[in-house]
Amino acid sequence: MDHSTSLLRLIFLALGAALVLLVVRSALHLPRGIDTPTTSLLDAAAAAGSSSCTRFAPWGCRQGGRTKPKPKPPSHETDVPRHPLDPLTVGEINRARELLRAHPPFASSPSSLFVHSLALDEPEKAAVLAWRKGADPLPPRRAVAVVRFRGEASVLAVDLAGGAVAPLPVPASGYPTMTMDEQVSLCSAPLADPAFNATVRRRGVRLSDVACLPISLGWYGPTEENRRLIKVQCFSAEGTANFYMRPIEGLTVLVDMDTGEVIHISDRGAGIPIPAAANTDYRYAGHMQEEGDPAAASNGAGLGFQKVRAPSMEPAASGPGVELVDGHTVRWGGWELHLKADARAGMVVSRARVQDPRTGARREVLYKGMASELFVPYMDPSEAWYFKTYMDAGEYGFGLQAMPLVPLNDCPRHARYLDGVFAAADGRPYVRENMICVFERYAGDVAWRHSESPITGMDIRESRPKVTLVARMVASVANYDYIVDWEFQMDGLIRIKVLCRYSPPPPPFSLTHINVATFLCTRFCKCMHTLYIKMERYLDV
Amino acid sequence: MDHSTSLLRLIFLALGAALVLLVVRSALHLPRGIDTPTTSLLDAAAAAGSSSCTRFAPWGCRQGGRTKPKPKPPSHETDVPRHPLDPLTVGEINRARELLRAHPPFASSPSSLFVHSLALDEPEKAAVLAWRKGADPLPPRRAVAVVRFRGEASVLAVDLAGGAVAPLPVPASGYPTMTMDEQVSLCSAPLADPAFNATVRRRGVRLSDVACLPISLGWYGPTEENRRLIKVQCFSAEGTANFYMRPIEGLTVLVDMDTGEVIHISDRGAGIPIPAAANTDYRYAGHMQEEGDPAAASNGAGLGFQKVRAPSMEPAASGPGVELVDGHTVRWGGWELHLKADARAGMVVSRARVQDPRTGARREVLYKGMASELFVPYMDPSEAWYFKTYMDAGEYGFGLQAMPLVPLNDCPRHARYLDGVFAAADGRPYVRENMICVFERYAGDVAWRHSESPITGMDIRESRPKVTLVARMVASVANYDYIVDWEFQMDGLIRIKVLCRYSPPPPPFSLTHINVATFLCTRFCKCMHTLYIKMERYLDV
Repeated sequence: MDHSTSLLRLIFLALGAALVLLVVRSALHLPRGIDTPTTSLLDAAAAAGSSSCTRFAPWGCRQGGRTKPKPKPPSHETDVPRHPLDPLTVGEINRARELLRAHPPFASSPSSLFVHSLALDEPEKAAVLAWRKGADPLPPRRAVAVVRFRGEASVLAVDLAGGAVAPLPVPASGYPTMTMDEQVSLCSAPLADPAFNATVRRRGVRLSDVACLPISLGWYGPTEENRRLIKVQCFSAEGTANFYMRPIEGLTVLVDMDTGEVIHISDRGAGIPIPAAANTDYRYAGHMQEEGDPAAASNGAGLGFQKVRAPSMEPAASGPGVELVDGHTVRWGGWELHLKADARAGMVVSRARVQDPRTGARREVLYKGMASELFVPYMDPSEAWYFKTYMDAGEYGFGLQAMPLVPLNDCPRHARYLDGVFAAADGRPYVRENMICVFERYAGDVAWRHSESPITGMDIRESRPKVTLVARMVASVANYDYIVDWEFQMDGLIRIKVLCRYSPPPPPFSLTHINVATFLCTRFCKCMHTLYIKMERYLDV
Repeated sequence: MDHSTSLLRLIFLALGAALVLLVVRSALHLPRGIDTPTTSLLDAAAAAGSSSCTRFAPWGCRQGGRTKPKPKPPSHETDVPRHPLDPLTVGEINRARELLRAHPPFASSPSSLFVHSLALDEPEKAAVLAWRKGADPLPPRRAVAVVRFRGEASVLAVDLAGGAVAPLPVPASGYPTMTMDEQVSLCSAPLADPAFNATVRRRGVRLSDVACLPISLGWYGPTEENRRLIKVQCFSAEGTANFYMRPIEGLTVLVDMDTGEVIHISDRGAGIPIPAAANTDYRYAGHMQEEGDPAAASNGAGLGFQKVRAPSMEPAASGPGVELVDGHTVRWGGWELHLKADARAGMVVSRARVQDPRTGARREVLYKGMASELFVPYMDPSEAWYFKTYMDAGEYGFGLQAMPLVPLNDCPRHARYLDGVFAAADGRPYVRENMICVFERYAGDVAWRHSESPITGMDIRESRPKVTLVARMVASVANYDYIVDWEFQMDGLIRIKVLCRYSPPPPPFSLTHINVATFLCTRFCKCMHTLYIKMERYLDV
C-alpha cells in the first residue's frame, strides 16, 4: 500500500491508542480526585458479579434478589486508622501526596513526580506489641514512598503528623514496581511504530485486533545502560476474549518505559502461524446448554457446563440439589448412580454414569465400586500381637460395624440418608438407620475463574464455584472410625477418601491417621485401591 | 480367697455376663421380629445425635428445633425392589429365611442354622444394563446366603420367586464373616473362665471393669484343627470410655467360636502396667469451656474445645461467625488477626493469635505473613522467551493486579469483604473494592469422631464438624489467576494455598495448574514459601 495510506492508518491508530488509553484509565478508574466517579469499574464489577452469577449459578441470583441492593461503594474518605498496622487511609495518602509534591526538589515540577509505591511505614514490632486498644494512642503514622522524579528513583520517609519528608538510602540499582499507568500505556506503545505495524500486517493481523502486554523490565545490554527498558509482546484478539491463546510468536518489542520509544524490534517468528481462535474462548455466555438435551449439547458451542442447583449447604428455596429416586438412585449435576448399604462392603456404588457436556450422552464411568477389604496387619511377631491381622470387611463386616450417622455433625444440614437392611444370625432382617448420607459438597472453593487484568481494560470476571457430590458412610471397627467418602465431580472424576480416626491419646499431643484411598477407575472396571498415611493434629476442628 | 467365694463370684459373673449380653442385644436391637421395638438404638442414636449437637454445635441445635420432630424411623416392611441392583428388602429377607429353614437338612433343626450373610445375588451385568425402568420387569430376584449348620458352612442360592434353594460350590476351607451375635458373645466369653478371672484380679482389675474384644479368627495349630477359633484380648474400662487406651497387655484368650469354650490362656504380661485412665476420655461432656475464660479453661478438664457459631455457609440466625472489628481485625474461633490489602503483596496477615484451649491464653502464632514474591521464570533460552522472568509481586504489584471478587462465585454467601486503598502514579488514592474476602469454611467434613462399636454396647457417638476460617484474595496477572487462601484451623494450624488458573486451551482437554503454597510458621517468624504443582481437570465444577 502507498505511504499516504499507511500515514492515515498511523494517525488513525494513534487516535485509537489514545482512546483505548482513556477507556482503560476509566475502566481502571485511575483517580481524578477521590470524589470523581472512580467507582465505574466497581459498579461494573458488582454488575458483572451478579450477571455472572445470573448466568452461572441461579442459586446465587435468587439470593441476589434477597440481599438489599448495593449502595454506592464506600469512598473510604472518612476512614481513620484504628490499629498501628492499619493501611494508609485515603486522607493519609492525600496528605502524603501533598507533602511529597511540596518537597524540594519535586516542588519545582510536581507533575514530573511519579509515585511507584506509597504505603504505611509500619511501626517497630515492639511498639505494635506494646499497643493496647483504647488505652494507648496510635504510634506516629509514617508513610514510605518509592518515587521517580526526572528519571531518578528515590525512597522517602514521610512523617504524616510532623510533615517531614526525608530520603532513605536507596539501592544502587533496581527497578521499582511498575505503575498502573505505565503498564497501561505500554500495552499500546508498539502500535506507534510503523515497522511494528508493518510486520503485524504482514502476518495478516488487523492492527485493531492487536493486544500487547509488557513482559519483564530489566537491563538488556551495554548500549541500553541507564535506561528503564521492557520487552513487549503481542497477541491477536480476533475472535476470542482469550487472546493469550493467539500469540504473535517471535515478535518482541523493546520499549523505553520513560519515553515510550520503541528501541528495537526482534522479528523472528514470521513463519510461525497464529493459533486459531476456535474453541479458545472461556466465557460462559453462549456456552450454556440444557442438561440432557443432546440437541442443545451438540450445538458445538463447546464448554457445556453442567447446571448446579443450590448446593445443599446453601439455603435453597428449591431444596437440596441431590435427587434420591426410588430409594437408591442418586441424581445430581449430570451424575446418576445407584447407592446401597452392604453388610460386608459397607457401601456399594453401582452404575455410576455422568453426562458428557459436549454430547449430552451419559457415559458409563463405573459399574460397581466398593471397599474390597480393609486389611490391618499389626506385623508384630510377639505372642500377644502376631495374630492381629484384622480384615475389617471380611471378618467383621464393614457394614455391620457402621453406626447411624449423627445429623449435622457427621453430615451437613441438607444431607439425604439411606438406611441399611441386614440379616441377623437367625436370618431375621433388621434396620441400621441413617447408615449412609449423600450431600452436595460446597466448601467456598472456586472451580475455575478468570478476571481480565486491569491493564487490558477488558471487563471480564468469570468465576465458577466448585460443587461436588459426596456419598458417605462411617464404620466404627473397635477403636478405629473409618469415614468413607465417595466424591463425584462434574468433570467425571471420582475421588474416594477414607479418613481414619484412631483411638486418641490425650490431646493436644495425639494424632489422627488419615488414610486417603485413591481408586483408579475406568469404564466398567473394578477399582484399584491404595492407602496413603498422613498425620494431622487431633484437635483439628 | 476360699473356693466358695470364688464360686459365688463365678455365679454372679455368669449372671452379669448374661445380663450384659441381653443389654447389648437390645442395644444392637438384634431382631425379635421386625415389628418389635428394634428401633431403640435408632431412637437413641437420633437422641445422641441431637444431644451431641446440643453440646457441641449450637447452630446445629437451633436448626434441630426448626426441623419437624423425628417420627418412628421407617420399618422398611413395605419396601419393594425397584431396580435390579436394589438390596434385599425386609420382605425378601424374611422370605429367604423361610426358604432356608424349610430346606433339608436344615428343616430338621432350624434353630441350629446360623446365617452369616444373606444378600442380593446380583443379576448378570448384561441383564442390568439391558433393563429399562418402566419398560422391563425386574430380573428374577435371587439371594445368596452363607450359612452354618452344625458346624458345616455352605453357600446357597435362593430363588425368591420359585422358592428353590440350591447349594453353590463352597471353598474347601475358610471362615465366614462373624455374625454380630458371635462378636457380642465373644466379648464376655473369657469371663466364664475362673483362671482368666483370677489373673485379671491379680492385676488389680475389677471384673466389672473388664472389656474384651475378639481379634482375628483363624487356624492356630494342629491340635486346633477343624475348629473355629479366635483370640480375645481385654481392657480395663475403669475411669474412661476410651478403654482401648488401657489394654491388659500380654493376656490372650483362645476361644472356640462355636462352643464359647476357653481353649487356652496365654498370660505373659503380668509385669506390664495398665496405662492410667487420666485424660484418656474423648467425650465432649464435661470438657466444654467458655472461650476466653482462663478460669474455666484451667479447670483441667482437658480437651478444651473452641465453640463454633453457625459456619457462615449455614443459615445462621446469629449471622456469620466471623467478626470484623475496626475494619481490619478478624476474630473467629479463638483466632484474632489483622488483615489488610497491600499493593505489592496483595494481602498481609499480621498479629495472628489463637487461644490455647488448655490455658485460655492467646498464643502469638504469626506476626506477619504475606506473599514475598511470585517468580515465574520460563527458562527458555530462545530470543523471544529468555527474558520472561516475571516477578508478579515486585514488578506488577500482586495487589495492583487483584480484581474485585465476584460475590457468591469467588466467595460464599456470608463472606465479609475488605477493600484496598492504593496510590496511583500521581499519588492520588483510589479504591479497589471487595479485594479480600474472609469467611468460615465448612465443607461437610468431620474433624473428629468416634462411634463405639456395636459389639461393646456402649452408646457413644461423638462427632465434630470441621470448620475453618479463610481469608482470600485473587490476583489476575495477565493470563494467570492466583487464588490465594489463608486458612486458619482451630488447632492453631495455618494453611496457605495458591490456586493458579492458567489461560485454558479448549475444554475438556485443557488443564489447570494448582500451585499449593505451604508456609512453615513459628512464633514471630516469617514464613518459608514453597510451591508445588499438581494437574487438575479444567471443567472441575
